[in-house]
Amino acid sequence: MLDIKFTPTTNKKPKPDQHNLGFGNYYTDHMLIIDHTEGIGWHDARIVPYQPIQLDPAAMVLHYAMESFEGMKAYRTPEGKVQLFRPDCNAERMWNTNARMCLPQLPVEDFVQAVKALVKVEEDWVPSLPGTSLYIRPFIFADEPHLGVRTSKTHQFMIICSPVGAYYSTGINPVKIFVEDEYTRACPGGTGFTKCGGNYAASLISQVKGHELGYEQSLWLDGVEHKYVEEVGSMNCFFKIDGTIYTAPCVGTVLPGVTRRSCIALLEKWGYTVSEERLPIVDIVKASKEGKLEEVFGTGTAAVISPVGELRYEDDVCKINDGKIGDVTQRLYDTLTGIQWGTKPDDMGWTVPVE
Amino acid sequence: MLDIKFTPTTNKKPKPDQHNLGFGNYYTDHMLIIDHTEGIGWHDARIVPYQPIQLDPAAMVLHYAMESFEGMKAYRTPEGKVQLFRPDCNAERMWNTNARMCLPQLPVEDFVQAVKALVKVEEDWVPSLPGTSLYIRPFIFADEPHLGVRTSKTHQFMIICSPVGAYYSTGINPVKIFVEDEYTRACPGGTGFTKCGGNYAASLISQVKGHELGYEQSLWLDGVEHKYVEEVGSMNCFFKIDGTIYTAPCVGTVLPGVTRRSCIALLEKWGYTVSEERLPIVDIVKASKEGKLEEVFGTGTAAVISPVGELRYEDDVCKINDGKIGDVTQRLYDTLTGIQWGTKPDDMGWTVPVE
Repeated sequence: MLDIKFTPTTNKKPKPDQHNLGFGNYYTDHMLIIDHTEGIGWHDARIVPYQPIQLDPAAMVLHYAMESFEGMKAYRTPEGKVQLFRPDCNAERMWNTNARMCLPQLPVEDFVQAVKALVKVEEDWVPSLPGTSLYIRPFIFADEPHLGVRTSKTHQFMIICSPVGAYYSTGINPVKIFVEDEYTRACPGGTGFTKCGGNYAASLISQVKGHELGYEQSLWLDGVEHKYVEEVGSMNCFFKIDGTIYTAPCVGTVLPGVTRRSCIALLEKWGYTVSEERLPIVDIVKASKEGKLEEVFGTGTAAVISPVGELRYEDDVCKINDGKIGDVTQRLYDTLTGIQWGTKPDDMGWTVPVE
Repeated sequence: MLDIKFTPTTNKKPKPDQHNLGFGNYYTDHMLIIDHTEGIGWHDARIVPYQPIQLDPAAMVLHYAMESFEGMKAYRTPEGKVQLFRPDCNAERMWNTNARMCLPQLPVEDFVQAVKALVKVEEDWVPSLPGTSLYIRPFIFADEPHLGVRTSKTHQFMIICSPVGAYYSTGINPVKIFVEDEYTRACPGGTGFTKCGGNYAASLISQVKGHELGYEQSLWLDGVEHKYVEEVGSMNCFFKIDGTIYTAPCVGTVLPGVTRRSCIALLEKWGYTVSEERLPIVDIVKASKEGKLEEVFGTGTAAVISPVGELRYEDDVCKINDGKIGDVTQRLYDTLTGIQWGTKPDDMGWTVPVE
């Protein structure tokens, strides 16, 4: 149990217009910090006014990317209450990320306590318009000033919050994605299953390339053979082919998404067959040509469910479900967002109230 | 040509004892900063007192590792002059790194001008004891506060300097390395050829594992087959087998080291055959068993040349040259350090005086 000191701000910011939040443009009045020092452990948990971080120019995070993060949301229910969605899953994932990255690990219960404590303080910042939420960003970085490559003796775990609109300003309209066959996101023995910063820096070039080609996102293939589908941009990806639903297995190169596992649980509850076998991209193109590629969608905390309307692999362009949202995609979206925003009963026991 | 403003410190630090510098423990009185803003380009080049950086907690570098760096040194010659070693090579490499990482690229001549300008200001900080030098760390990071994953609109390029002793406090004694067969550093289509921070964060786990096994460094294998040797820790690696010298080719997964290319140039000048064909680790073990593995050494800016005395791959432990420094290793070390510190003539035209 953390002892979290609270220093309230004396200078509250005005709340932004809920109709024009965008994603990651506004930050709340406070942030949470917990220090970690080698030989001491976690100490000085505190909620303080949102303010700049002072880093020595030699701080290891600025040179060797010793950092990881999580992403989650707080939702406003119709009754005006605030709730979280499976925060323990994020806490567990950061625990696993930090084991791989040699970063200190915060116990799951402390992580969840910290998130709840900050969201409680920032309760007024959780917006209420449909599709809006309070995005929560826990992150950790190495702040020891040292230029030799080794683990750091000091770290800061922090949480900041940002009121957000829907991730895609175009709403739940199908996106166009292209299959990246040149650059690689992850390979076995690497960091693909973690939310380390380096994974995202390495992926930017494909995003830029995709935009130049007129596509919103990239679909990553495995790093060894460039044959099997893995993830879309920063989402997991699902394919409905001839009635069966496929998604890449989480075997070290794919992020184990919280929305991903929630979708799998719902789909299995609804009687669908979900295959986590590796799926070759050529099989997807073949299914499309045979009229069997029924639905494609991405899943992630930021966008929840993102239908894919067009998939390009080399010279093949697959149109999916005439560019319309498929039935399974829509049902998952309605069910998950219903549970998250409290407009549908939470049969799965996934939501956690804040106080 | 940059217009570099200079604000001298009013509070000079005492110089540390040259006998106990270590690596990356002390920083000089000033640092150089150049800002980059989308739509404007590079601006406000300045040398200012060494001081903390203020970053918004949402600064992209802290979340998505949008950062890269270089490493180089300034050397004190017997005549008391200060010189650099192939600074244009570092400038070119950062240019290439930043293209892959979607970071703004500083022209080679501006990079070299900036390095020279800061080293000139910090000339008194270049130590003179044998083996000591002024380590120079150019780096860049994305400082825009934004949580959506995309390229940043603002960046800071900086240079800091640190007077250092020899990288290994044990001197040029042979190190023990183990062959990493579980974790991966790089794969084709990834960032292995760049000096992005993420490569180093991902490698820490192998360093920790190696230390637990009693080894100083890890030798990385290729990420696809875990079959071919690539790099040692943060150095390139050379193997002398039956008279021929092998080093991994720079084909996207291996850092193109400045010391590496300098060694290849010297070796070829001396009449050795240098092969940049991919070399399977099992061939190295086989050569060791047949008594043909004559020398192994790592190359890098920090350590210059680091002889390897023992190599462990799975259950095989190869002792190299009875744990002594080999003739070629010693000759490269003597020649390179002689050129760098100005005790031998620079036949290759590699050194650049500072003013």
